[in-house]
Order: sequence, then C-alpha cells, then structure tokens
Amino acid sequence: MELLEEHRCFEGWQQRWRHDSAVLNCTMTFSIFLPPQRTATAPPVLYWLSGLTCNDENFTTKAGAQRVAAELGIVLVMPDTSPRGDAVADADSYDLGKGAGFYLNATQQPWAAHYRMYDYLRDELPALIAAEFKVSSRCAISGHSMGGHGALIMALKNPGRYTSVSAFAPIVNPLQVPWGQKAFTAYLGEDREQWRAWDSCVLMLESGEADAIPTLIDQGDNDQFLADQLQPARLAEAARQKSWPLTLRIQSGYDHSYYFIASFIEDHLRFHAQYLLK
Amino acid sequence: MELLEEHRCFEGWQQRWRHDSAVLNCTMTFSIFLPPQRTATAPPVLYWLSGLTCNDENFTTKAGAQRVAAELGIVLVMPDTSPRGDAVADADSYDLGKGAGFYLNATQQPWAAHYRMYDYLRDELPALIAAEFKVSSRCAISGHSMGGHGALIMALKNPGRYTSVSAFAPIVNPLQVPWGQKAFTAYLGEDREQWRAWDSCVLMLESGEADAIPTLIDQGDNDQFLADQLQPARLAEAARQKSWPLTLRIQSGYDHSYYFIASFIEDHLRFHAQYLLK
Repeated sequence: MELLEEHRCFEGWQQRWRHDSAVLNCTMTFSIFLPPQRTATAPPVLYWLSGLTCNDENFTTKAGAQRVAAELGIVLVMPDTSPRGDAVADADSYDLGKGAGFYLNATQQPWAAHYRMYDYLRDELPALIAAEFKVSSRCAISGHSMGGHGALIMALKNPGRYTSVSAFAPIVNPLQVPWGQKAFTAYLGEDREQWRAWDSCVLMLESGEADAIPTLIDQGDNDQFLADQLQPARLAEAARQKSWPLTLRIQSGYDHSYYFIASFIEDHLRFHAQYLLK
Repeated sequence: MELLEEHRCFEGWQQRWRHDSAVLNCTMTFSIFLPPQRTATAPPVLYWLSGLTCNDENFTTKAGAQRVAAELGIVLVMPDTSPRGDAVADADSYDLGKGAGFYLNATQQPWAAHYRMYDYLRDELPALIAAEFKVSSRCAISGHSMGGHGALIMALKNPGRYTSVSAFAPIVNPLQVPWGQKAFTAYLGEDREQWRAWDSCVLMLESGEADAIPTLIDQGDNDQFLADQLQPARLAEAARQKSWPLTLRIQSGYDHSYYFIASFIEDHLRFHAQYLLK
C-alpha cells in the first residue's frame, strides 16, 4: 500500500491509498477517513459506494461526511467505482466500463478479466482495511445511485455482514431500467436469469426472515432520473411484502446531485451509528 | 442575468448565475446560496473570495458551508477569482492572470482592460445582489489564501462596509512574498509605492481608530505555503500595534486544502453571525 495523500480534517485524517488488487488484477485507489481516537475501542466502518462516473474522491470532497463521522467515531471507506488502468476494458459511454462497474462480477468478455467489484468489496478490500487500520469488525454500507444499488446488493447478498444499509437515489431494480439492462447485458450476457442475482428487488423478495437489517433510503422528488432509472417505490413494495424494516423518504425539491447527499448525509450517519455503535 | 444551475440544498437553494460585467468588460459567473426563508427579515450576506486557480464552485462544492448558513439564515455569495473569457489577458502560470486576479484594479497592460476585481466586488456585484435578491444591507466577507488577502483588503479599504472579516491562510503581506511580488509587478508595475494600497499589513497600520472590525484568521501549521507566502503573524503584529480586534488561531496539523476550510467554516459562520445578525 502506498499513501498518496493525507490531510488533517475535523481532528481526524483524510487519506488516499493505492494498492495492487489481486481480485481486480489492477492497481486500485481508495480514500479513507480516520476519526480522532477518543476511546480505546476500535471504531466501526461505513463503506460508501459512489455512482456512475465517480471515483473515490467525489464523496470525499463533496459530501461533508467527515464532520459527523469524526463526532460519532466512524471510519469512512470510499472505494473506486470500477477497476482502473490501461489494461482494463472500457466503453465510450459514461454508464459502462470504467467508472461504471455496477459492483458485480462480470462473466462476459472483455469485462470478466477485471470487472469483479463484488468480490473486491466483499473480500479483498475489507481484509485490507482490517489488516492495515485499527477498525472493529462492525460495518455498515451506503451509496448513491449506482452505488446505492451496490450498497443494497452487498447487504442483501451477505446477511449478517452489515449492521445496516442506506442509499441515496439508488437503482433498486436494474433488471427493469435502461442503466441496468445495458450494464447487465454487457457484463452478464443476454440470459436474464443470470441478472436476478444482482437485483435488489429480486434479492429482497427472496430473502430469509432473519436476513433483514435496518434500511434507509432518501430520494429527491426533483431527481431527473427518478422515473426512468430509479423508482425506489419498487423496493419499498418488496420491503412491505417481506416486512423488511425499510424507510423510504421522499425529499421535496432535491435532485440527483451531491447537494442532495450533503443535505442528508448527517441523517444517514446517525442512522448507521445506532447499530454500528451498539 | 442567466440562471445556469439550481439545486435544493439544506432546505435552501444553491444557484449559479451568469451576467455581463461592465466593470470587468466580460461575462462573469457567480454562485449564491439562499437560505430557507424562516422570518420576514431579509437575510444578510457573507461574501466568500476563493484562492488561486479557483472559480465560484470550489467553495460551493467543497466547504460544506450551506448547512450552517441555512441554520443561521445567511446568504453566501461566491464570486469568481478573475475576469474570464477569450478576450481576457492570461499568463502561463497558475499565479497570474485568469484564476489569479488578486482582487485589485490593475493599472498595467495587458491587464488593465479587464482586471478590476476590486471595483467589481466593491460596487458592481453588491449592487447586482441587492437588485436581484432579497438581502439586507448588512454584509461580511471571508476568503482563502489569495481570497483571504482579498477579504482583508476589501474590509480595510472600506471602513463601515462590513460588520466583520475572516480568512483562512490569507496572504497578509503581498509586498514581501513571492506570490504578491509577482502579481503586483505585473498588475501594478515596478513602483512599489503603488503596491502599498493593496497590502493588508500596510492598510491596517494606516487605519483609523474607528475603522477596526472583528477579525478572525485560521492558519494550519502544516500549510506548505506558511513560511514563504503567508506569515499571518505579520498581520497579528500590526493588529497588536493598532489594538485591532484580530484573533489568529494556529490549527495544529492542518494544511492549505479545503479539508482545512471545511473543518473550521462553521466557526467562521458563527463568528460572522454574531455581528451580521445583531
């Protein structure tokens, strides 16, 4: 691991690291916020997964999350959104390839050689964080848009792993929307049966009774992608059917931008803290 | 005026506007945050002046100031740092020309045709804000680095205009440091007597007894520019000689980045609110 940047921030440290990923078969960068050490207890971790076109720095610089994470004593880990580097396959559009890994394991060429963000986030990155930083085993996960999809599938596919999950304007039903259909066709192939393992609505409807964890979703009603790509009410309906403890909040006037995230990130951190710090 | 962007943010509105500036003889862009209207009173304004290489969006996206401005009911106005456009003179370096207007009125060619940021900020922009938005006449000013220099000279040259002034890592004595000497030579010419009207230390030492206003400066002690370009202790010494109410806080471990600004912007907003909201 190589430290690329380090900044004092709210009495803690904002750092950026580079490491070689065996899973992704490339060099990756992630950002981490380490809160000030105020107790002897190792702090829990909140993973943040970003949306299309982002890297590890969008949330880091724009969300203003460090203030509350410092107060609560929560480590923030911000991974990148796809494998990176000249050897990694890419596409000419913003919603496929680099910056658009969709947090899944690709099975189709040319993507399968590198696009395994799910395994990276499930196994390699948490092991690296545990080995290199003083953190507890308790963790939660959150994200925005494509990263909201990522946070939800990580939680739904790994019962018991996360104490809670939240999302801003997530893609909840990629099987049924243009962003998901395009990415899944490329990464997973034409057989739609294979897509079901990466769809939050499907996964929630198939979840076991003991799997449910507290879930918070915020959605702006002035979000340009709401009707075509997001439709969080579909996940709320699945949650209702399964008695899954999901709160969907519709925020009046807010759009898809980081101004929306910045406005409500404090609520999300305090929501996760209830379970992380138990 | 043309509205370029508008985002709901902390129950207020973050907007970006374009307008033709008569003073600067070019088209300019500024950002503004309008807090939620909670009382019948028109809110006061805090002007924020950014540093070298910045435009109106750096503070807007990275400082996290809107949260506290929304709570306190303060309008934030973020101007650009220089005139802009193809017709405007520029230099190949980051610290001269576009993005580096130094908040003065240039007298030398090729700069004098457009580089009049002082007049723009003193007259044209406040008149525009007063005409187009519901604001009170009370205002304060703050800034970072070159923008800290700008905030200080705006306050020192216009007694009675601002209720308070603050700065993060300001250039306080441009006459004596490389950034200031390079810019002032280009914009104002070789005659150093002409430079004195744009130097905070000189202006403070020449200020009248009744001119002093509450002043807050934060400076990180891990700032890479501290020794060569900033040296805020020089202004603190001038303040001591003049019994000017200046508080200089040295913040341990902090650097010159927006992580430093984000960490302490709440203190600055609450400092200004004491006087703005009287």
